[in-house]
Formats: sequence, C-alpha cells, structure tokens
Amino acid sequence: MAAEMAEQPAVLAALAGRRAEVVEHVRACLPEPLAGVMLVARGSSDYAAVYGRYLLEVHAGVPGALASPSVATHYRSRLDLSDTLVVSVSQSGATEEIVATQQWARDCGAATIAVANAADSPLVASADLALVTSAGPELAVPATKTYLTQLAAMCVLGTALAPEPTALDDDLTRAADEVERLLASALGVDAAVAVLRDAEHVVVSGRGLLMGTALETALKLEETCLRPVRGYSYADLRHGPMSVVTSGVTAVLVAAKDGPLLAALVEIARDLGDRGATTVGIGGDEAFAQACAVHVPGPDLVEPVAPLGMMVPAQLVVERLARELGLDPDNPRGLAKVTRTDPTDDWKGTTE
Amino acid sequence: MAAEMAEQPAVLAALAGRRAEVVEHVRACLPEPLAGVMLVARGSSDYAAVYGRYLLEVHAGVPGALASPSVATHYRSRLDLSDTLVVSVSQSGATEEIVATQQWARDCGAATIAVANAADSPLVASADLALVTSAGPELAVPATKTYLTQLAAMCVLGTALAPEPTALDDDLTRAADEVERLLASALGVDAAVAVLRDAEHVVVSGRGLLMGTALETALKLEETCLRPVRGYSYADLRHGPMSVVTSGVTAVLVAAKDGPLLAALVEIARDLGDRGATTVGIGGDEAFAQACAVHVPGPDLVEPVAPLGMMVPAQLVVERLARELGLDPDNPRGLAKVTRTDPTDDWKGTTE
Repeated sequence: MAAEMAEQPAVLAALAGRRAEVVEHVRACLPEPLAGVMLVARGSSDYAAVYGRYLLEVHAGVPGALASPSVATHYRSRLDLSDTLVVSVSQSGATEEIVATQQWARDCGAATIAVANAADSPLVASADLALVTSAGPELAVPATKTYLTQLAAMCVLGTALAPEPTALDDDLTRAADEVERLLASALGVDAAVAVLRDAEHVVVSGRGLLMGTALETALKLEETCLRPVRGYSYADLRHGPMSVVTSGVTAVLVAAKDGPLLAALVEIARDLGDRGATTVGIGGDEAFAQACAVHVPGPDLVEPVAPLGMMVPAQLVVERLARELGLDPDNPRGLAKVTRTDPTDDWKGTTE
Repeated sequence: MAAEMAEQPAVLAALAGRRAEVVEHVRACLPEPLAGVMLVARGSSDYAAVYGRYLLEVHAGVPGALASPSVATHYRSRLDLSDTLVVSVSQSGATEEIVATQQWARDCGAATIAVANAADSPLVASADLALVTSAGPELAVPATKTYLTQLAAMCVLGTALAPEPTALDDDLTRAADEVERLLASALGVDAAVAVLRDAEHVVVSGRGLLMGTALETALKLEETCLRPVRGYSYADLRHGPMSVVTSGVTAVLVAAKDGPLLAALVEIARDLGDRGATTVGIGGDEAFAQACAVHVPGPDLVEPVAPLGMMVPAQLVVERLARELGLDPDNPRGLAKVTRTDPTDDWKGTTE
C-alpha cells in the first residue's frame, strides 16, 4: 500500500500530461444534445464517481446521476438513454456487474466511456471510448493510486464537458505536486492515528465536492482497520444520526481550504466537540484546524481539485493505523481485488 | 408513534382512493419529452425517494436521479432541467433546503411536484403541482404514517409515468389491507426485539425496490434506539464491509416475497450466518425464513408495492425495542420534526 501510494505523483502527472488528447476524444463521442451523465461504479470507484457527479454538476453544468446496477442486471429495465453519456468506473475493468451494466447502457442507446486501470479488460473492450488510467498494477487490496487516477479522470471529463475553458487543467498539474508534498510531510498523521487507535465508534463527514472523499475515507478505515465506520454528508448527519453522537464517538471531518461548504464544516466540528466527540480534521483552513481536536493539514488546492490531494493524508492515517493495530494494510481479511456482488450466476439468465 | 402507526391503513386507503384523479394531474404537468425524474429529499423522505427512483426506472422505464441539494443551495449551479420532472418529498413541506432546491429546479426550467403532508406549506405553495399525502398531523418525531403515504405517492407517480396501464393500482388498495393485517398480527416481533436488545453492531441490508426500506429501517433503529446502525445494499455489503462481519454483528435483512433479488438475499442470509452474525429476516419467502436465525413475516404483496407493507413489522420492532430499552419512541433525544441542515443562514446569501 505504501509503495503504491508513493507512485501517485508520477501516475497523476502522467495522466495530466495526456489530458488535452483525452478531452478531444471525449468531446468526439458525446451525444448531441447531452441530457446528462450516468456514472456506474461500486466501492472506491463509486466514491470517485460521487466526486465526478458533483464536479459535472457544479463545474460543467451537466446533470449527473449514479446508476443503480440492479436496474440493469436484475430487473433488466429498458430506459431510453440515447441522450445520456454513461461513464463506468472500475479499477480492474473486470467487475461483472459493472461490465454488464455498461452493456445494458449501450443497448439502451447510451454513449459509453470506460474509466479503468487495466487496458486489457472487458470493460475497456466493450466501451465506445476507454479512458485508461495507466497507474500500473495495484497489488495491495485497498485502492490508492488507482483511486487517485480515477479522480483525475473525473477532472478530465469535467474539462471535456464544460461549455467554456476552465482552470481545472492547470489545477490538475498542481495536484501532482501537492500529492508529492503531502506524502513527504505526513504532518499531524501520528496524532490522528493515536486518537483513532482507541476509538470505539468512528464517523466520517464532508459534503459536496469532498463528499466522495469522506465516503472513501470511511471505507478505507473500515476495510483496512476492520472497524465499522460510517460516512455521511454533514447535512445527513445533522438530520438525524447527530443524536447518537456522544463522548464515545470519534468524528473525522474532511474539508477543502475554500468553497461554499467550509464555514458549515467549521461549525459542525465545533458542534461535534460540544457533544463530547473527538474531532479529527483533515484539510480546511485555520478556523477549521482550530475547531478540531486533532488536525492533519490538507492540500493547497482549490475545492474542485482538492479531493486529489485530500486523500493522501487520509491514506497515510489508514496505513499507519493498520500497522499500529498489528494488521497488514495490504491484505485486509476477507477481501478480494475483483469483487463479485452476486456469488451465483443466477442474475445472468438469458442474454437480452 | 404507536397511535400514528395504527392510522396507517386508513390514510393509505384514502390516498389509494384519490389515485385516478392524481394520476391525471401528474400527466398534465409532465415535460414533453420527459428525459428523467430528479427526486429531492432528506432523511426518511429520502428513503421514500430511493424507492421512488427504483419504481420509476423498473416499473415506468423513466431514468431517475437523487438530487444533491448542495448543488442548488451552496454551489448555485445552473443546470438545464427543462426536460426534467423534479419531485420534492418532505413531510412538513417546510425544510428550508428542500424548498430552496425546488425553487432552484424551477429556475432551471424543471416541472415541479411537491409531495408533502402539510397542505399549508411553502413547498406545496411554490410547486407546479402538489401531491398532498393528507395523513393528518404527525406528532411523534419518527415518521411512520407520513412515510407510508410518501411511498404510496411514489406508486401513484409510477402509475402516472408508466407508458401502459399496470397492476400497481390494484396492488395499492391491497397494501392498505396488508398493513392492517400486519399491525394486528405482530408475528415474530418479540423475538426480533429480544435479539436486537443485546446487539452490539447492527447492519441492515436489502437491495433494489426494497433498498429504501433497508435504509429507513436502519435510520429508525438508529434514531429511535440511539444506536449506530448502518444500512447497505447487499452488493455494497459484499463489496467490502462484509469483512468486518463477525459474531458481534446482528444483521437485519429485508426481502420481498418474490422478485429477482430474493435468491441473493437468501444466500447472503446464509453467508452472514456462516460468519457468525445473528440474522433477523423481515419478509421474503420460506427459504429466506429458514436461512435467518429470527424471522418476522412480511406482507403478501408483490415486490413493486412490498415496501408499503414491509415497513410495518420494522416499525413494530423499533417501537417495542425503544420501550424495552427504557426510551420514549415518540421523542428520541436531540431530534426535531423540522430539521435545519445548515444552522446558519450563510448559504442563503443573495437570491438569484
């Protein structure tokens, strides 16, 4: 896991270097008119898709949706997707339900783009366009460099779909530098590990462009450290589950250094502290750092690309925490690199 | 809570009686062509919307999406929603972010339908069409009868948007009878309460048309009984968190008596049991009942309308569990009936 984390600046820079070419390819395969984008993914890839959905709506002004694969694989529903771009995201490009859902989308008339790390994969082979993230083989079960390149792919997609030129391109190059800087500094990581080591209940919260980061951080903490961890938008947290927050809870909050949600994240950090929770803040600004019990500095990147840098301190925390707990961060118990969400082939039935 | 649960057959039957008229109104306000439906909600209403989204895609063949309110309220993004129907769901019709998101959708060109229980509410006042669920005042904080009528409203919407006549109408009338029968029988409820009373970690799982039921059951268990409870699709559970399932876990599974996901739910019940988890099954068929350690019978309703009946045994479990734990099911600590997801008004800023 640590070795693959260290490769992230290089694979990110390589993808950023190919962006102009990829943007042209994406634009050439868009439906005209484009009604919206549907993203198809599961697990970490799904959280990259959550980021992609916000980026497309906020940055490119295109409505997004996250597909429910069972609608394709089990219910075999027939939707008119002729004005829709369907983007499937899978590290291996081999997850059966994602491949099947992409095929279903093509049958429903959609234009399809596969975002996969493995060029030689069924997802890539059967898409209209493949955006291969080329991060090299990932051997540790927890996705790190492939996740970061999936986020970068979402940025390239955002650039391609935006009606006007944007600053996202330059920011993507800066992101690689920030990832390198954060990997080297590891500031605040040990303090965060010390708090999380003894935590009973852990929740992770963020919102908007950083929502995917919160969900991915929760999943990584849960899978790698074998503890149940929940990820929420702060709005969902306030809407109900806040009532179960007491002194037994450790709350990890992720925030960009700017953007329209930062003030509210400072506020929820204070409120969680007032309820007796121990707060671990990643990123944000000075006020956010002050409002959290433990603070891990984040990237110096504007909110739209902040997730690319923000995941690095979270990875460092997860990796060290796993070792601290005597676990192997590379091979958490009971997980496989290519997952089957339906162990039997019942749902395949006859092909349509 | 118990008193309002008892009113459910009557309010459901009343709504079913108005369905033909409502279907006509909905059809009259649809954009032509209709590209898709965006649902706007939070909390329990959001889980009714999750059901609505599956129902629309599976039953009516219309692409659905769940809105991210921050795109409207904080990022103030401008999307072209002129071919989109936006359905906002809120019991009170007064949740500020939902009202603001509906207004944003109108500004983006969408046709808007408000599903609310309070006729005299800002959400109803500012929608193109109001589908008032008329369940009467709900005094207990946990939504019960208003949630069930929201599900019924989703059925009416599904009928209105389906290109051809369907059996959903008749099934809706039968649902009221099944709700009444299940309220009276309460079979298996005490056994489920006995297991959950001593549970350390609780997860709830389902999928597809019953996914919203799984999420709502998790939320109710968490809010009413003040325990952290997570809801997952079984596919997401298998994709990763399954690795943290051991003998300390109690898994509540919800399944319809039929449908393409039932076999997989029987299978995950067995797998969870093999991992040492205590399984509580609600609904399903004979094989599902056999595969679970404790079984609570569900409604005799086909999968598309099963959620309307399925929530009743779950409500009975939650209500009795709360009392068993010495808590007041009507007034869980720290929750308000109308929630503010952003305590300050910062995000309101200038109107657009």
